[in-house]
Amino acid sequence: MTTYLLERALLPDGWRDEVEVTVEDGRFVEVRDPFTRFDPQALADNLGIHRSAGESVRVPGLTIPGLANTHSHAFHRALRGRTQAGQGTFWTWREQMYAVAERLDPDGYLELATATFQEMVAAGITCVGEFHYLHHGRDGTPYTDPNEMGAVLVEAARVAGLRITVLDTLYLSSGFGAAPRGAQVRYADGSALAWAERVSALVAPEHAIVAGALHSVRTLPKDPAETLNLLAGWAADRPFHVHLSEQVAENEGALAAYGLTPTRLLAAHGLLGPMTTAVHATHLCDRDIAELGSASAFVSFCPTTERDLGDGVGPSRRLADAGARLTLGSDSNAVIDLFEEMRAVELDERLVTQRRGHWRSADLIEAATTTGHASLGWPDAGAIAVGQRADLVTLDTTTPRTAGTGADEHTVVFAAGAGDVVSTMIEGRLIFRHDDREEIGRALSRAIGKVWAE
Amino acid sequence: MTTYLLERALLPDGWRDEVEVTVEDGRFVEVRDPFTRFDPQALADNLGIHRSAGESVRVPGLTIPGLANTHSHAFHRALRGRTQAGQGTFWTWREQMYAVAERLDPDGYLELATATFQEMVAAGITCVGEFHYLHHGRDGTPYTDPNEMGAVLVEAARVAGLRITVLDTLYLSSGFGAAPRGAQVRYADGSALAWAERVSALVAPEHAIVAGALHSVRTLPKDPAETLNLLAGWAADRPFHVHLSEQVAENEGALAAYGLTPTRLLAAHGLLGPMTTAVHATHLCDRDIAELGSASAFVSFCPTTERDLGDGVGPSRRLADAGARLTLGSDSNAVIDLFEEMRAVELDERLVTQRRGHWRSADLIEAATTTGHASLGWPDAGAIAVGQRADLVTLDTTTPRTAGTGADEHTVVFAAGAGDVVSTMIEGRLIFRHDDREEIGRALSRAIGKVWAE
Repeated sequence: MTTYLLERALLPDGWRDEVEVTVEDGRFVEVRDPFTRFDPQALADNLGIHRSAGESVRVPGLTIPGLANTHSHAFHRALRGRTQAGQGTFWTWREQMYAVAERLDPDGYLELATATFQEMVAAGITCVGEFHYLHHGRDGTPYTDPNEMGAVLVEAARVAGLRITVLDTLYLSSGFGAAPRGAQVRYADGSALAWAERVSALVAPEHAIVAGALHSVRTLPKDPAETLNLLAGWAADRPFHVHLSEQVAENEGALAAYGLTPTRLLAAHGLLGPMTTAVHATHLCDRDIAELGSASAFVSFCPTTERDLGDGVGPSRRLADAGARLTLGSDSNAVIDLFEEMRAVELDERLVTQRRGHWRSADLIEAATTTGHASLGWPDAGAIAVGQRADLVTLDTTTPRTAGTGADEHTVVFAAGAGDVVSTMIEGRLIFRHDDREEIGRALSRAIGKVWAE
Repeated sequence: MTTYLLERALLPDGWRDEVEVTVEDGRFVEVRDPFTRFDPQALADNLGIHRSAGESVRVPGLTIPGLANTHSHAFHRALRGRTQAGQGTFWTWREQMYAVAERLDPDGYLELATATFQEMVAAGITCVGEFHYLHHGRDGTPYTDPNEMGAVLVEAARVAGLRITVLDTLYLSSGFGAAPRGAQVRYADGSALAWAERVSALVAPEHAIVAGALHSVRTLPKDPAETLNLLAGWAADRPFHVHLSEQVAENEGALAAYGLTPTRLLAAHGLLGPMTTAVHATHLCDRDIAELGSASAFVSFCPTTERDLGDGVGPSRRLADAGARLTLGSDSNAVIDLFEEMRAVELDERLVTQRRGHWRSADLIEAATTTGHASLGWPDAGAIAVGQRADLVTLDTTTPRTAGTGADEHTVVFAAGAGDVVSTMIEGRLIFRHDDREEIGRALSRAIGKVWAE
């Protein structure tokens, strides 16, 4: 049992100074906020606590709950600074990404994913949703343990010290029924049943959840009904994620192949529900937005990736107004900085509407914390409250970026960057301190150096 | 005379490893690149130099020329994290900005501008173009020295250690002839002649240039011909900057008042030339783009501010193709990070076109270095070459952001952030080292605290 005295912390009902939190077995067992309660006895007790503050560990700075990164492809980290300069479209970028996908073996993947997850922890991320499709050997042959690559991700998260939801991805086709080719043979299980059987065998230790995903409606067989019905069973009571309408071409393909938009195809088969996360959700028609909203689905926006890949700006505000729940992801990991993702949702909406103030800062923080965690199957994380998993992310409010900014939710959303995180606690364990940045940089250099040296 | 051995540096013709530069009286007097010359004697000499490398100061990391920030309002730094959350439009944001403008006196302005310029130096900026309009006392009365506020900016730059071009701004009207009101009385000189007389008396020490600016065509008198003709004299042989078509409303107002777009109005009076910088240049018609291009005018894009204020995405690629020359500015200083501005030009163009690869990374670095410096009247800065002012900005390529990214121009543009700058040398003086960040944060906190405490 350890008690921390947080100089300033974001509780579910707002900012409080001098908050004492007590952590036991990885959860908050007490959260005391001495100066906003009017019970005289409690006040006296709390003043007492203050007098004995030497017994608690003082945490200066601005402390927020742990951030949930709801959409990551860990291995894309090797592409940072290497494909951003390319010309072309999303589709030409994908060819470069496949070149890395073809190179990775389990050892290299473990090293790369571990270092990438460490960078996430250094950015205040306490839980990652890893959209996992790199399942099989280079020629498509399953490994002896067909879940070896998934197990690598679980192990990487354990070493890095954060929670993981493995979103094990069904990928049957290169596009509306066409056979997988090139790097795609590593993704494909042949049938939905084979996928389900494999994924069911992936073991999840305490820090992990295994859940299902569909790569996108592009990767369904020509007659998708049976596959979608099977997936609906998976999506009923656990997280289910799917890339949705990231590109206009996906919509056109779906309309040509199935006569429905991707959203409506999923809805028609019971795949839109309160455990579904639609990733990107960029190019939607009014009816799509209404469907996602009425299903209370999650949407995972990844604005820095959506900029990078030229996806466009999705209708985040209209989705939220319709009832959908925003979460945030670092996706391609060209940037790992959920502070940047938070503000980018608002700023990109400004660019296309020429108006300001679509999102309240507090709501963007909620997207990055409680809502994000819920979409990954961890509803008991993302808030500094009794019973929740004890994640604490502390920002330095005295750096050149953050100094003089008011130390509130607008500092978090509009001033802070990943580099301002001074410590990250996950389930009561101090996983990251600012001085660890050097070692994380070295780990990334080593891991990525090996990918490109091969 | 000091010699530095740069581990890896960006020279005018590309990246070179183990570059020796010798600095005397603030300029590069030798730049030696031992391994790419094929003169055997030179090679032998250079190997000799390597053997005696102990005599030179080794600079590990990625070294680039100094960055020029071509558009800044230093005092807006006090608004970071305080207005970004607001609703409304550019125009409602402006009211909040005016609230700070009303509070500042020369002492407070000196402290705030100094700390803000220090943050710039920490971000690798070696020269700032300060778009200066806060001229007079709170009620519009000139100070005893009518250039007191301009002198404050020159002094702030001296203390912070960077070059400054004071773009002293003519502001005659609140909008197409209407009288200045509120904070605007601090900006106005009454007539163009009074402005010219005042600005001519502002003394520029060696680290400063004084140049002219027009706030925008909005701030011209109802009959603008005489004023524009006077400004054309100023713009002939020294930098001249003007906010141009940042908002659709400015275009509409100009068409209503003058029957011309802002660009064409300036062109009609000889105000578009190779020393003119059009700031923002967001909402342009085809003919505007052609005019700016054929004039070889500079355009200062400020993408993070343009996002923040909901300005929209300007046609950077089309302007450059037409012949205009791109530079970059931090403008509102809600972010001070020209690395972010570089990539934002490309990424925002991707968002609106859904295609990638509009700008080469090398061209974005050129915008932020040589072209930026030229637009501020310092054509002998922004390159690591003999005769140029000896500015060197060194990036750490081993941080979590930059590790494993290839250490080339794509690292600079697509991975690095201001926080990765480990040192900034300006005209041979080491002005910033990474450890100074703490003190800069304190200076910002102090200065901004005073603004809001008043």
